[in-house]
Amino acid sequence: LQPIVLVHGGAGSIDDAKVPGIKIGIKRAARSGYKQLQQTGSVLDAVEQAVKSLEDDSHFNAGYGSVLTWEGTVEMDAAIMDGTEMEAGCVSLVRDIKHPITLARCVMEKSRHRYLAGDGAMQLARSEGFDILPKAALITEIAQKSLNDYKVRRNKSENCKLPIPPGTVGAVAIDAFGNVAAATSTGGTMGKLPGRIGDSPLLGAGTYADNEIGAISATGHGETIMRYNVASRILALVQHKNCTIQQAAEQVLQQMTLRFKETAGIIAIDHRGQLGIYFTTPRMSWAYQKGEELHSGIQAGDNQIEVVCDES
Amino acid sequence: LQPIVLVHGGAGSIDDAKVPGIKIGIKRAARSGYKQLQQTGSVLDAVEQAVKSLEDDSHFNAGYGSVLTWEGTVEMDAAIMDGTEMEAGCVSLVRDIKHPITLARCVMEKSRHRYLAGDGAMQLARSEGFDILPKAALITEIAQKSLNDYKVRRNKSENCKLPIPPGTVGAVAIDAFGNVAAATSTGGTMGKLPGRIGDSPLLGAGTYADNEIGAISATGHGETIMRYNVASRILALVQHKNCTIQQAAEQVLQQMTLRFKETAGIIAIDHRGQLGIYFTTPRMSWAYQKGEELHSGIQAGDNQIEVVCDES
Repeated sequence: LQPIVLVHGGAGSIDDAKVPGIKIGIKRAARSGYKQLQQTGSVLDAVEQAVKSLEDDSHFNAGYGSVLTWEGTVEMDAAIMDGTEMEAGCVSLVRDIKHPITLARCVMEKSRHRYLAGDGAMQLARSEGFDILPKAALITEIAQKSLNDYKVRRNKSENCKLPIPPGTVGAVAIDAFGNVAAATSTGGTMGKLPGRIGDSPLLGAGTYADNEIGAISATGHGETIMRYNVASRILALVQHKNCTIQQAAEQVLQQMTLRFKETAGIIAIDHRGQLGIYFTTPRMSWAYQKGEELHSGIQAGDNQIEVVCDES
Repeated sequence: LQPIVLVHGGAGSIDDAKVPGIKIGIKRAARSGYKQLQQTGSVLDAVEQAVKSLEDDSHFNAGYGSVLTWEGTVEMDAAIMDGTEMEAGCVSLVRDIKHPITLARCVMEKSRHRYLAGDGAMQLARSEGFDILPKAALITEIAQKSLNDYKVRRNKSENCKLPIPPGTVGAVAIDAFGNVAAATSTGGTMGKLPGRIGDSPLLGAGTYADNEIGAISATGHGETIMRYNVASRILALVQHKNCTIQQAAEQVLQQMTLRFKETAGIIAIDHRGQLGIYFTTPRMSWAYQKGEELHSGIQAGDNQIEVVCDES
């Protein structure tokens, strides 16, 4: 098996103006995760590192640059899962920290629970020495402006469907031995009510990893991904119906979009290292590194290939 | 199809002294849900009513009588799901209300989200006119004493495995047309850290309903049910491998208990009205009404049958 780190930067209708920045960031994240995998040999380290890279980048809706709640605050969700032991850590309603994905890993490794939200999650962050940032530190000017626009449009026409801002970031990885891991991190949906939880931190909805089947991270309309249990349905087709992970992803997301009129995207890797990349949104940025090849894309059919050197 | 309402009162090592009270309460809940189904014809109403009956009963770890967090507070989780539209509502970290399951339904019907936690969920409760109870109103003397005992034992031997108190309550129902619904409500695990979320409110882990497959509610070690995605795995075997729901439940729970050394139980009903009742804990209280027959049990192999009249 050849090790691979595959990342996504959210599915949605991404503005042309944002594409160059997103392309740079998504490729940087794949390379950063892959480098980590080479250094420590841990798929868990790899997906955490890839997601951290995207959390730091204001082009993505996770960590710094997260969309804002209706109240103008940042509330983030994240989950990480290790396919070997099927260990996992999940956090919701997290504020004022740079790397929710690292806090999710902390829940997995340091807590007697597997899912902590709100003040309970923040208490773990403090006791584990996370930097607690000043109140507005994660809020970008663009996020503030987007919320203002959203409020104006929402107040004008409650039922009018708003364009979906690019979402959630995520990563999946496999090592030479077939160990897989998955991680997802998000600021949620623009203008969400405080307290809202989406699919990202929910195992089987937005995130899952099981060495016997594969690893997956989803993005898109969280409420629908959660109800339809997208990650679980895709992995079940691979496990029980001998589908490739690509076929399984296409089938489940097409059914979801047909039935619920909502869109989503996924990245996945099966236990043999086969990839699944699919979205029913207009765009989803993704990239993966496999050996010296860096593949990336943002529209259906894209597959740009670059050769990278390891010592970058 | 004959309509059925099936309920559980939590899987665990239930003390003999508590059995009589639990038996009365679990049968009352099944009858109450069934009566509701006859009156309104709605499986959603039926599972909500059955769970409300258990939330009111201090013998069960949900609503009044919930176990306490490490801080001595009550924090409740609940989810409800309708198999017809696959609509759902979920709440976590809910305080000071009698019926978290009704708040979960409110999230489904009145909110633009499907999962609200903490202050956000409480804000919906207030705006929808829920009675907000005084701080300690849901705390029973027994729950307080159990926490004290737990703290003493935990401080003595951190690694010693403590007996699992009976958990979570839940209900599944089917009507004559094959519509199914599921509901689960819980106080969580005794002595949990504030902010801890378990499997109950997570669709595909502790709760799920899909008319094409069936409905399910789980109970037991929440962290493990969540990681193993118990509800989804069971329903996948029914959907893809032609297992009966009973076979599927036995296979998944036995695998889970073998692999993770943690126990759980489920109740389920498939789209043809076949039942699944199984637990790897010493006991799980359950009851269902089907026509004039009221079935119930608490240990493996139990199946007490009583004939009930509808006008009770």
